[in-house]
Amino acid sequence: MAAAVAQRESQVVLGLDPDPVRLWPAAAAAVAAGATPAAQAAAAVFAHCRAVMDAVGDAVVAVKPQVACFERLGGPGWDALQQVCDHARAAGLLVLADAKRGDIDVSATAYAQGFLGATPGPGGDVAGLGADLLTVAPYMGLDTLRSFAAVARPRGAGIFVLVRTSNPGAADLEDARLADGDTVWERVARLVGELGDEHLGPQSRLSDVGAVLGATRPEHLARARELLPRTIFLLPGVGAQGGRVEDLAPAFAPGRAAGLVTASRSIVNAHDQDGGAPAAAARTEAERLRAAAWALS
Amino acid sequence: MAAAVAQRESQVVLGLDPDPVRLWPAAAAAVAAGATPAAQAAAAVFAHCRAVMDAVGDAVVAVKPQVACFERLGGPGWDALQQVCDHARAAGLLVLADAKRGDIDVSATAYAQGFLGATPGPGGDVAGLGADLLTVAPYMGLDTLRSFAAVARPRGAGIFVLVRTSNPGAADLEDARLADGDTVWERVARLVGELGDEHLGPQSRLSDVGAVLGATRPEHLARARELLPRTIFLLPGVGAQGGRVEDLAPAFAPGRAAGLVTASRSIVNAHDQDGGAPAAAARTEAERLRAAAWALS
Repeated sequence: MAAAVAQRESQVVLGLDPDPVRLWPAAAAAVAAGATPAAQAAAAVFAHCRAVMDAVGDAVVAVKPQVACFERLGGPGWDALQQVCDHARAAGLLVLADAKRGDIDVSATAYAQGFLGATPGPGGDVAGLGADLLTVAPYMGLDTLRSFAAVARPRGAGIFVLVRTSNPGAADLEDARLADGDTVWERVARLVGELGDEHLGPQSRLSDVGAVLGATRPEHLARARELLPRTIFLLPGVGAQGGRVEDLAPAFAPGRAAGLVTASRSIVNAHDQDGGAPAAAARTEAERLRAAAWALS
Repeated sequence: MAAAVAQRESQVVLGLDPDPVRLWPAAAAAVAAGATPAAQAAAAVFAHCRAVMDAVGDAVVAVKPQVACFERLGGPGWDALQQVCDHARAAGLLVLADAKRGDIDVSATAYAQGFLGATPGPGGDVAGLGADLLTVAPYMGLDTLRSFAAVARPRGAGIFVLVRTSNPGAADLEDARLADGDTVWERVARLVGELGDEHLGPQSRLSDVGAVLGATRPEHLARARELLPRTIFLLPGVGAQGGRVEDLAPAFAPGRAAGLVTASRSIVNAHDQDGGAPAAAARTEAERLRAAAWALS
């Protein structure tokens, strides 16, 4: 990740969360008459994602498909997700599958095989999506995170653990105060640090276990950086959710690759505000965000 | 759910977590030469699950496919999951998709559309899996659970929220003590109660928001029942993970449908211990479990 950020001079992660009835107009033309509703929606979704990647790929370091948006289209949707991952890799972009998976033991391993690895089968190994990074949920504890890391590490892949998210409901549990003084999210941050310290990049000295930290509450970033000096932060919430890139400085303290700014609707729907063609508006917005983050870091 | 438990006289949920290289022998015969590794594995996995459902269907009230085991086979795996759901429904069984999904806002809605609802698309509505129930993860707070419930409720479907899981790592976070005296899992239980009280079954007086409570620590069940008098408990961990059905009495206090005992490996792999044909051994074990739970409740 550190090498990719340096080479592409970007810390921007392009979120792809396609709604089949709100795609760029040209994507609707990809719909083949006569196909099933799922196949039609999946073809349009892939055409849309490809157009977005082609428009803004030069300004970003990675793409972050929201897996829910593909999964809801069944088998054809999963095939479209695979096409998106393949297209991104061919363009030199890293793939961060935003799946927020969490499970125990062999089930966590099964998810990791599907996103980051491969599954032995009767007809030979079944290749997974080939993502580079996967978001995971921490509720069930460190052993479940360790099952994901065990598949990721031998492949040079990594995981991002939800720590403090950007939604209002984060206050219900993540911000709850523990008897020892930590909040729940600070406790999770300590688990992330414990697991991540086991494996640091030889040059970057950054760990292969990242943290998702909502950019909507910048006061959390300084505290998170105290707890996690060698962790890459994935920072959603810039733009559509109200976060400002200018508030993210603490994330970049250990180096440029230590803070990744993710944006989806603010890039993909930039033409709603700025007018013009969707691709040109998206490119302008992605480049603006890239330059703002790079200048800050 | 309450009606199905009464009609089938069973509280047993059959877990399906197929490993493509550890299937019942007859399922391997379903592999078509020449197909891709993913298609071969998916065909074998569906043949296995169908055989298991046919063997033990009479003794159970629902099936619980572990979504990770299908998802890792890509598009063909997702198609196999759809086939499993369709076969279960045709046999009169409820489908509980064990996906442990969690996300915010429109992404949570997208997952709920995929499992419980449908997605509007350019070629018409894309039908989801048609599951009756879905497991969800609580880390991100009540608003995220509410997004799932909002899709489930109009369809008569329900969700099960992870509360206290059966893995050792549950101690890391779920058992952490909050400043107000609750553990984290007790806090989650209160959120489940708050959301579930909004919608009780007209006859059963049970809520449509269930709780996953590992059967490996029965001392938690009495406490959970205090906090959640109208909640259905899904109880994994009986059998292979060491939980005993005899310890589950508090779960059944509000009625027979208030405790669902889930078992997968202890049923599917019963022939490893008992010998004989896999189907006969599985049927015997499922019936033993059904009778034990029914007698207790």
